[in-house]
Amino acid sequence: MQLLRTLCHIQAPSGHETRLTKFLLHYIATEQKNWRATPQVLAGEQFQDCIVLVFGQPRTAVFAHLDSIGFTVRYGRQLVRIGGPDAETGYQLVGEDTQGPIECTLTVDEETGALGYEFTRDIERGTELTFQCDFRETDTTVQSCYLDNRLGVWNALRLCETLEHGIVAFSCWEEHDGGSVAYLAKYIYETYGVRQALISDITWVTEGVRPGEGAAISLRDSLIPRRAYVDRIRQIAAKSGIPHQLEVEGAGGSDAKELQRADAPWDWCFVGAPEDNVHSPDEIVDKRDIESMLALYQVLMREL
Amino acid sequence: MQLLRTLCHIQAPSGHETRLTKFLLHYIATEQKNWRATPQVLAGEQFQDCIVLVFGQPRTAVFAHLDSIGFTVRYGRQLVRIGGPDAETGYQLVGEDTQGPIECTLTVDEETGALGYEFTRDIERGTELTFQCDFRETDTTVQSCYLDNRLGVWNALRLCETLEHGIVAFSCWEEHDGGSVAYLAKYIYETYGVRQALISDITWVTEGVRPGEGAAISLRDSLIPRRAYVDRIRQIAAKSGIPHQLEVEGAGGSDAKELQRADAPWDWCFVGAPEDNVHSPDEIVDKRDIESMLALYQVLMREL
Amino acid sequence: MQLLRTLCHIQAPSGHETRLTKFLLHYIATEQKNWRATPQVLAGEQFQDCIVLVFGQPRTAVFAHLDSIGFTVRYGRQLVRIGGPDAETGYQLVGEDTQGPIECTLTVDEETGALGYEFTRDIERGTELTFQCDFRETDTTVQSCYLDNRLGVWNALRLCETLEHGIVAFSCWEEHDGGSVAYLAKYIYETYGVRQALISDITWVTEGVRPGEGAAISLRDSLIPRRAYVDRIRQIAAKSGIPHQLEVEGAGGSDAKELQRADAPWDWCFVGAPEDNVHSPDEIVDKRDIESMLALYQVLMREL
Repeated sequence: MQLLRTLCHIQAPSGHETRLTKFLLHYIATEQKNWRATPQVLAGEQFQDCIVLVFGQPRTAVFAHLDSIGFTVRYGRQLVRIGGPDAETGYQLVGEDTQGPIECTLTVDEETGALGYEFTRDIERGTELTFQCDFRETDTTVQSCYLDNRLGVWNALRLCETLEHGIVAFSCWEEHDGGSVAYLAKYIYETYGVRQALISDITWVTEGVRPGEGAAISLRDSLIPRRAYVDRIRQIAAKSGIPHQLEVEGAGGSDAKELQRADAPWDWCFVGAPEDNVHSPDEIVDKRDIESMLALYQVLMREL
Repeated sequence: MQLLRTLCHIQAPSGHETRLTKFLLHYIATEQKNWRATPQVLAGEQFQDCIVLVFGQPRTAVFAHLDSIGFTVRYGRQLVRIGGPDAETGYQLVGEDTQGPIECTLTVDEETGALGYEFTRDIERGTELTFQCDFRETDTTVQSCYLDNRLGVWNALRLCETLEHGIVAFSCWEEHDGGSVAYLAKYIYETYGVRQALISDITWVTEGVRPGEGAAISLRDSLIPRRAYVDRIRQIAAKSGIPHQLEVEGAGGSDAKELQRADAPWDWCFVGAPEDNVHSPDEIVDKRDIESMLALYQVLMREL
Repeated sequence: MQLLRTLCHIQAPSGHETRLTKFLLHYIATEQKNWRATPQVLAGEQFQDCIVLVFGQPRTAVFAHLDSIGFTVRYGRQLVRIGGPDAETGYQLVGEDTQGPIECTLTVDEETGALGYEFTRDIERGTELTFQCDFRETDTTVQSCYLDNRLGVWNALRLCETLEHGIVAFSCWEEHDGGSVAYLAKYIYETYGVRQALISDITWVTEGVRPGEGAAISLRDSLIPRRAYVDRIRQIAAKSGIPHQLEVEGAGGSDAKELQRADAPWDWCFVGAPEDNVHSPDEIVDKRDIESMLALYQVLMREL
């Protein structure tokens, strides 16, 4: 889990994913010699801070978002949200402005809910703050901020080790209304004719999706994927014998929103491990669900 | 009204329109020998569960959505909404899972509003339920669930009988945030240069739009169409002498949302009969408004 | 400020921008002989009521929306909003229907908030009403309805006088969910390879953005632009010595929404003067901020 620990420590709030992009490009350049197949690596200004890896003759694309929730410094000592972070007085936040590195404390006004910070000095406008990473591992669990979605990124990177045919796309802005999957999807569809997608992201522990019972195959969230495609995925998963759970929600979303709205006929399905303490510094995932998630991606990318 | 009755009985909730798509493909294959012109039929995986019919040299495209509102089975005996169905305890719902066909009863918790069902057994996760169809016809009205939008589909099919130049597109997911019109519109615009649209869908009886006074030409709903295009439609309708009404709303939407957001300069206008008891099992439409709707589409497709 | 006064008097609610489009096309045809470079003028049905000016070898596009907020006449004497206008009983509204010109008074029901009008006769359904323009100028300020966004349009037109390389795009529907920037952006990106944008629009006076301290460079609103691009803009602005302010908001939006969602990798930044009395007949802007805005656009279009 050393790779996951490293990923969780890198700051990459929506709109400012550069550090994580650089880390991944270096990781890919270093590690791909150990991978079964060598991908084409697409990156640079035409892809902003996204990365696309193309293996062999792709039929399906995996989307894993790089960005995380966080906070932007406004005026006075006010903060505004990046995405939908959980907020409790006392959470430790980190960042950096031109005056140097920052370690401060989140404050939530009990009456108004207004967000602020306590620090030895004023922080410059527009500075992004993210949760301080306290990565904890036991025999059965990992716990940290930003398992959503560094675990989805980790899953995609581990998938690369054995992937022969397929696309792995690392996206930006997912936590804050999106903005990169539209052009990634267009490029992928127009260049490779690929219109099948899997969303490598983390979902919620609920009354119907329990920790330790396998990654969730989502039958719907706020959006409804095309039934025919999800049924194929369910059949492959059932035949594989890999533990998994079926999720049905009325809320929540993912990079799939942009695929659903795209002007190409994308089929998509969210497949991901469930976490508890969602969007807090204490997100926790059962290791069996991580194992299930990777195994499902391996079989699905072969058989879809 | 036998065709309309048949259409209302076929289950096709958003995301699972397959049954209705198959019915329509069969109907089109069988009936087109009786139509004035023979269309090119576009369907298959590239169009997911949509169908596009191209007649002659098209200048205008009609969009009619296939899908309906409904419910998805969650955990325990909970339901979540597909689109925005009306919900009252006692509504009869139908569906099917691997254990067989289902006829159950909707329940609405009086305090929490939570949706559930009563049935002799648990229904499998992700199963879609739709209203049981009780189709009622009088001399002056038709009444059934899903007149929205089987009546819009019926109108489009009847239009095909005499259409010489134009496109008829059957779309999916309209009741649940859309997802197919974007790519249908792109294909139509790029292949045929068509950027004029009519939305064949059903609207609401209100204080300003009365049953029996003709189909409504919508001047706006939550979105505002381009005035210059709507004015042309109003002029053609006025000159035709066909009864119609002008609608002005601040809420509501249609397949036009995706045309308005499209990256091509689509002009669009919603033209449809009004119904009462919206999104319930008892939607009711005046036959004079159905007649007006078809007559308006016939003249508009000729003159636009 | 004669040009700005004229722009503020022309009615152009979202969806019915024709009058302003015609005025601009005439203005451009007349004035371009005095401009440093002669642009290519793109207009006509393929661009609906938008206009695109292309100067030299463009690297960056400026978007300025033509449309304004207002009201649509519904049934009885009801009004529904176009965009988000401020509403107070007594505001004077103007418009025109087939019976002639209209000057009426807005009414707001104290209990329900329902909008209506007082006039000597009923106004026809679908008629658009806008604020009556009372343009006021002092040594230090301009005040009028619709400075948002006639001042952004004015800024773009003044920029044209000295622009050598760049695109100026006048868009529609911005106040009411958008609908033109998607296709303008696609055309611009595919034809010229341009994917850098500046949003020439008006923002709000707040506790952090004060009148007279320069145009605001927005670090974020409801959406978050890519940090790398905004940092370049901040550096150019800082080096230029032109007064400006940094804005950080959690709400609000602009034409940038459509760029962020576009299927091309657009970088964008909102740069505009702040106004007080937002979306009312009494919007007011400090002249120093107008001066700063134009100066910033001149330097940014040279150096980006």
